[in-house]
Amino acid sequence: MTIIGIADTTFARFDMGAAAYDELIQHTSAKIIRVTVPGIKDLPVACKKLIEENNCDIVMALGMPGGKKQDKICAHEASQGIITAQLMTNKHIIEVFVHEDEANDEKTLAYLMNKRARDHAKNVIDMLFNPEKMKNNAGTGKREGFEDAGPVRL
Amino acid sequence: MTIIGIADTTFARFDMGAAAYDELIQHTSAKIIRVTVPGIKDLPVACKKLIEENNCDIVMALGMPGGKKQDKICAHEASQGIITAQLMTNKHIIEVFVHEDEANDEKTLAYLMNKRARDHAKNVIDMLFNPEKMKNNAGTGKREGFEDAGPVRL
Amino acid sequence: MTIIGIADTTFARFDMGAAAYDELIQHTSAKIIRVTVPGIKDLPVACKKLIEENNCDIVMALGMPGGKKQDKICAHEASQGIITAQLMTNKHIIEVFVHEDEANDEKTLAYLMNKRARDHAKNVIDMLFNPEKMKNNAGTGKREGFEDAGPVRL
Amino acid sequence: MTIIGIADTTFARFDMGAAAYDELIQHTSAKIIRVTVPGIKDLPVACKKLIEENNCDIVMALGMPGGKKQDKICAHEASQGIITAQLMTNKHIIEVFVHEDEANDEKTLAYLMNKRARDHAKNVIDMLFNPEKMKNNAGTGKREGFEDAGPVRL
Amino acid sequence: MTIIGIADTTFARFDMGAAAYDELIQHTSAKIIRVTVPGIKDLPVACKKLIEENNCDIVMALGMPGGKKQDKICAHEASQGIITAQLMTNKHIIEVFVHEDEANDEKTLAYLMNKRARDHAKNVIDMLFNPEKMKNNAGTGKREGFEDAGPVRL
Repeated sequence: MTIIGIADTTFARFDMGAAAYDELIQHTSAKIIRVTVPGIKDLPVACKKLIEENNCDIVMALGMPGGKKQDKICAHEASQGIITAQLMTNKHIIEVFVHEDEANDEKTLAYLMNKRARDHAKNVIDMLFNPEKMKNNAGTGKREGFEDAGPVRL
Repeated sequence: MTIIGIADTTFARFDMGAAAYDELIQHTSAKIIRVTVPGIKDLPVACKKLIEENNCDIVMALGMPGGKKQDKICAHEASQGIITAQLMTNKHIIEVFVHEDEANDEKTLAYLMNKRARDHAKNVIDMLFNPEKMKNNAGTGKREGFEDAGPVRL
Repeated sequence: MTIIGIADTTFARFDMGAAAYDELIQHTSAKIIRVTVPGIKDLPVACKKLIEENNCDIVMALGMPGGKKQDKICAHEASQGIITAQLMTNKHIIEVFVHEDEANDEKTLAYLMNKRARDHAKNVIDMLFNPEKMKNNAGTGKREGFEDAGPVRL
Repeated sequence: MTIIGIADTTFARFDMGAAAYDELIQHTSAKIIRVTVPGIKDLPVACKKLIEENNCDIVMALGMPGGKKQDKICAHEASQGIITAQLMTNKHIIEVFVHEDEANDEKTLAYLMNKRARDHAKNVIDMLFNPEKMKNNAGTGKREGFEDAGPVRL
Repeated sequence: MTIIGIADTTFARFDMGAAAYDELIQHTSAKIIRVTVPGIKDLPVACKKLIEENNCDIVMALGMPGGKKQDKICAHEASQGIITAQLMTNKHIIEVFVHEDEANDEKTLAYLMNKRARDHAKNVIDMLFNPEKMKNNAGTGKREGFEDAGPVRL
């Protein structure tokens, strides 16, 4: 039985984990396990524990780095840790980060956090159950949360 | 029996380890083990030793990076090491850093170092004994040391 | 039997994986395995899985980092992960990244993504089957996608 | 029997290893093993070899990064490696770096390199033989090479 | 029997591997194994393979990062990987990088690439066969490729 992990934070200003969960259950009957940690730098080991202690096949790591310079450094550290966690487990951890300064107002921020969590939940479904669809979309300029950029042509 | 580790530094200008200790003992009878190292770059292995040699279930890594550019790089290196230490042990290490330039005067700096250490001590308690409370706070814009940012809405 | 892996992304705006595949099959009858992931930060573990779970002898990791500052950080994180994946497996993973801002217009971007993927596919062939040719080209200022820079002389 | 390692470089412009050695032997009869490498980026593995091949209980890694931008990057790389080496061995490696641009003239540079090496040698002694003294100095704003910053108060 | 590895790139604009080889054979009868890869980011695993698959006791990693901002990031990634490869193998990998913008013209660039490769080849000889000479030069301000900076005095 497939198990999907969701790790998110109390720091984020929108419940991205709930959005991801809501999207996932519309497409799969896989078991879903959620855990919440304080901030994004706590996500790498939380995801690794979901994989190694809870047998998750794939994990979504959701977070909202703040807009200040120091927050960008934290996001970088978290991302490196998430990549290392994947290399140590041979499992995908889909990072779903929305930087607070990607949106100009709170409503747009909430929209973007909700949309990107859901778009990446669909990626998780395709990676697990429909890898051919992923291959068919190779190089087509897909985006999560925003409009697709689309392909360029020779 | 639960064991909580506290690692801090002689470089910091406020005894964050004592603040964390004082907060922890108000909420738990878990065993607490303290160690002090010179600076924040000595924290990653100190935390890993607390986990592997002293059997700590979770560790708080407390430090005060200076305000200069080189200090910021040291903080980044320490943070990466703390994340790696977690991935090598599958245990959480809660990083509690207050950058010296987060406060404009010494009294505010002391206030912030004390408050953030205590707020994160409460996170440690919840992560150990009340993970459901953490989940309920997912995406609500919690902050440590400062006022909560609060959630944004669709 | 030699197995070559190709990992690319849905984020990229040109099907670099198809270009690499097309070039490879002109020079080798090796088995080729393709996988597509959402973005470049998903490439490190995808490549490691191709090596460890699909027995690839070498992998091409193809991607198109965006032109914004945050995209550059993502590219850096992906590159570090790709290097770590190689060190964990003792196999080469040839990174083929075209930064979106390397080209001034979409047609040039497509040209560059196609050309660099093909040039590096030839490198992969030489690394696998003709290492002496690689040695003969040591220090000669080869470039992929662009004109060669050529050697400098004493 | 306690063994202390000292690793330093030919790049540095003052014999920090000799200063550390001279200070150590005034406080301990522990065995001391020295090794010298070309530059700071050679220090991480030199320290790890001192620990794993020469059974050192703790190592001092002494170096003088140059003042140029590229030198700062080298220092960062060396520091990350030193932290990783500690995590791989569960032993402390005390990094003693003096950046060439911390001093305005050569005499001050020599003073600082000598003083910081000696101050950190004393830290090594306390970490090995007097950890309670380290704990008593937690959060007191100690500095090595410079005047102590001292504590801040609520 | 001592085995020395040499890894270099087709990207570099001067055959640093040949210069290193030529210098090494003037001072030792050790076996020398050469491998050439496309760029500097391919060096870390190439060096690790030389150590683990070809039993090299030490490796020289020679490369010429370009002068653009992105090239500097690649150099940083390669350097981190080279340090990690050393930590995974407990063998020294002497990084010999000449940044293209260290020289103002092509002739000086060639001079510097040749000279630094040869100077570091001498370091490799001393590290292998004459570690006491390295210790005697500790803190004396040695440089490779350029004039020595020399020591500073108290």
